[in-house]
Amino acid sequence: MSVPHVVILGGGFGGLYAARALKRERVAVTVVDRRNHHLFQPLLYQVAMAALSPGDIASPIRWIVRKQRNVDVLLGDVRQIDTTARLVRLEDGSDIPYDFLIVATGTTHAYFGHDEWRTLAPGLKTLDDALEIRRRVLLAFERAERENDLARRRALLTFVVIGGGPTGVEMAGALAEIAKKSLARDFRHIDPRSSRIVLVEAGQTLLAAFPASLRAAAQRDLERLGVELRFGSPVTAVHPGRVETGGEWLHAETVIWAAGVAASPVGATLGVRLDRAGRVLVTPELCVPGHPDVFVVGDLAALNGADGKPLPGVAQVAIQMGQHAVRNILRAIERQPLRPFVYRDLGNMATIGRASAVADLGRVRLTGYVAWLAWLFVHLLNLIGFRNRLVVMLQWAWAYFSYQRAVRLITGSDRPT
Amino acid sequence: MSVPHVVILGGGFGGLYAARALKRERVAVTVVDRRNHHLFQPLLYQVAMAALSPGDIASPIRWIVRKQRNVDVLLGDVRQIDTTARLVRLEDGSDIPYDFLIVATGTTHAYFGHDEWRTLAPGLKTLDDALEIRRRVLLAFERAERENDLARRRALLTFVVIGGGPTGVEMAGALAEIAKKSLARDFRHIDPRSSRIVLVEAGQTLLAAFPASLRAAAQRDLERLGVELRFGSPVTAVHPGRVETGGEWLHAETVIWAAGVAASPVGATLGVRLDRAGRVLVTPELCVPGHPDVFVVGDLAALNGADGKPLPGVAQVAIQMGQHAVRNILRAIERQPLRPFVYRDLGNMATIGRASAVADLGRVRLTGYVAWLAWLFVHLLNLIGFRNRLVVMLQWAWAYFSYQRAVRLITGSDRPT
Repeated sequence: MSVPHVVILGGGFGGLYAARALKRERVAVTVVDRRNHHLFQPLLYQVAMAALSPGDIASPIRWIVRKQRNVDVLLGDVRQIDTTARLVRLEDGSDIPYDFLIVATGTTHAYFGHDEWRTLAPGLKTLDDALEIRRRVLLAFERAERENDLARRRALLTFVVIGGGPTGVEMAGALAEIAKKSLARDFRHIDPRSSRIVLVEAGQTLLAAFPASLRAAAQRDLERLGVELRFGSPVTAVHPGRVETGGEWLHAETVIWAAGVAASPVGATLGVRLDRAGRVLVTPELCVPGHPDVFVVGDLAALNGADGKPLPGVAQVAIQMGQHAVRNILRAIERQPLRPFVYRDLGNMATIGRASAVADLGRVRLTGYVAWLAWLFVHLLNLIGFRNRLVVMLQWAWAYFSYQRAVRLITGSDRPT
Repeated sequence: MSVPHVVILGGGFGGLYAARALKRERVAVTVVDRRNHHLFQPLLYQVAMAALSPGDIASPIRWIVRKQRNVDVLLGDVRQIDTTARLVRLEDGSDIPYDFLIVATGTTHAYFGHDEWRTLAPGLKTLDDALEIRRRVLLAFERAERENDLARRRALLTFVVIGGGPTGVEMAGALAEIAKKSLARDFRHIDPRSSRIVLVEAGQTLLAAFPASLRAAAQRDLERLGVELRFGSPVTAVHPGRVETGGEWLHAETVIWAAGVAASPVGATLGVRLDRAGRVLVTPELCVPGHPDVFVVGDLAALNGADGKPLPGVAQVAIQMGQHAVRNILRAIERQPLRPFVYRDLGNMATIGRASAVADLGRVRLTGYVAWLAWLFVHLLNLIGFRNRLVVMLQWAWAYFSYQRAVRLITGSDRPT
């Protein structure tokens, strides 16, 4: 007797927690991802900022589910979903038939129609992105050390982060710490402490998803680190060595993109309505309208929460959606009605730097050192793999006491800069 | 009053230990390297074999010497040395004048006139090399899992290592452990334990530099791990998916080069006699003949030891040469005669795998578990940076008890495979 086949596209938070939730069920599971590893995205900026190694925050998907004998993991690129024939076509032309499908392919960064900015202002989604940003940041200081022209040196020591969401805030804070602390004594011809870090935000505030008191705390902490904040400043042009924002040109050799998000193109192959960012408008049960056997979870799903506002693209939403999709699949197998998804908000956190963070836990709001400890604790706890937790804890402890960055490597020199 | 300017080319073992030896001296030191990091080369194969992260075995050169206020570190590529004008020209056209020069630019891998093999059979010299090998090895298993054609699957699960020196032995042993232990349970359609690992050596023995009893022990340990050994088998052709050796074609998708070594091209710009591998034939004082102000140390220097045999290209020789060159420079500054270099042989080690190594410590020869513990101890002790030691120790302990590989990441997908 054959068991139902559940195919999961994507091994991020949504897909992985769905696969885990199917652990003891009588189904065959196939997880497809274009990468061999699950990435703990909330700490990716620490790889870009030379604090952690890629291996510290990523584990092979097939290793994570190795004990789940009902799970098959495939390295592959999804070309198309055919909801009529009920199969997934991969880029190599092979087809994977499904009884139930969970689409969790997430998002990538968007340049709002300016794809030519991509190489000039890299974004942060993959490990390769993070290594490229690390490379550019470290190389900028090396080049400044050798530069005699003062204006060019100034541009090499100017770092522009575009976007004031959690990723932008985390990167701007980390850049300030690198310049003012970690590198302070390492150069002979430049003073890294004189670096200029500019955080550019199109809207009127940082961390728009947080309550006003925490936004103010984050802004104060960033300013204390010496980060220059610009609000109401959409970026209108990015050229090599300079960025136009608010009618002014900023001369900066290193520009980092933390602004826009676009849905994975896999969603569009479903042939249903998408929102402006390309996300799939799912039913309250997380299904694709008209296809009760196809679920979309995580960043790719567009759904409003109980407050009528869209659910944010964070790990907790993806995890809970993945688990809920599994519960609905099990109900469908038992011919019971599906249930709507209810998001249980566990809170929202962002870190600014050493001993500085903001945490919105509903009734409790934390800032500064306490919020930072909470942030450390939550992130360590959620990292997958005992070894990773131990190594990350060790790296953090060392960084805390030494003010140093553990992984200041410039690699990948044959890639374009 | 200006102090003498010592320029050091290369931040490997030779160059770095030379810079450190100049710590308290009244000289100005400039270290030039094309990479920003010192690499602990003896453990590089562990990065290629997914056991350690790049950051665990590499540290920024300028961080290592940050407290030595007389040292300036430059990221740059050497184009040419002009011993008449006494200056070093970099690729960007700038010149660095010197009073004393230490050339320590080392070696790269050589393909014996078959440079077209480079992309088919990558060698192991840099972190990028290691990540590329890791990528190929891990990807081969992923592709085999999806391959239905039995012959192609077999080729994907066949790994050929070319060269039976320490690096080849270490990689063949590690590959066997990855296939037979680390990955044993992770796949559903293939059995990684059925992988074939072939070590191909042109000569008649493994580890030619070791005494016969240790060579026999290494051979026995490798065979116990299931590695297939082929002696007297020079490689005569490398094509995509197959290697010709001893008149036979081996079908293997993954081929690793651990055979030839060629000197850095910087040596040739000195305009003096080189040996067949392009190394500089130095005087017993480690000078370039006719230029008592120019020293060559490490792998780039060709010099015979007390036994009349060429000194091997190992870390200890480079370190002692770097320190000796500094002593001779200090003598020259004080107008005293230079002294010949005497190598103090501290022994020679190679590791085969878990709890298996050989160590030749002069009168004492160790094999198996004891040799392996000695190997661990010596390598941990010599790693630079307290944090690195701790992290590596942790990774090793975890690997020992779990049989796992910590860093099984496939990254850099846009690079050619």
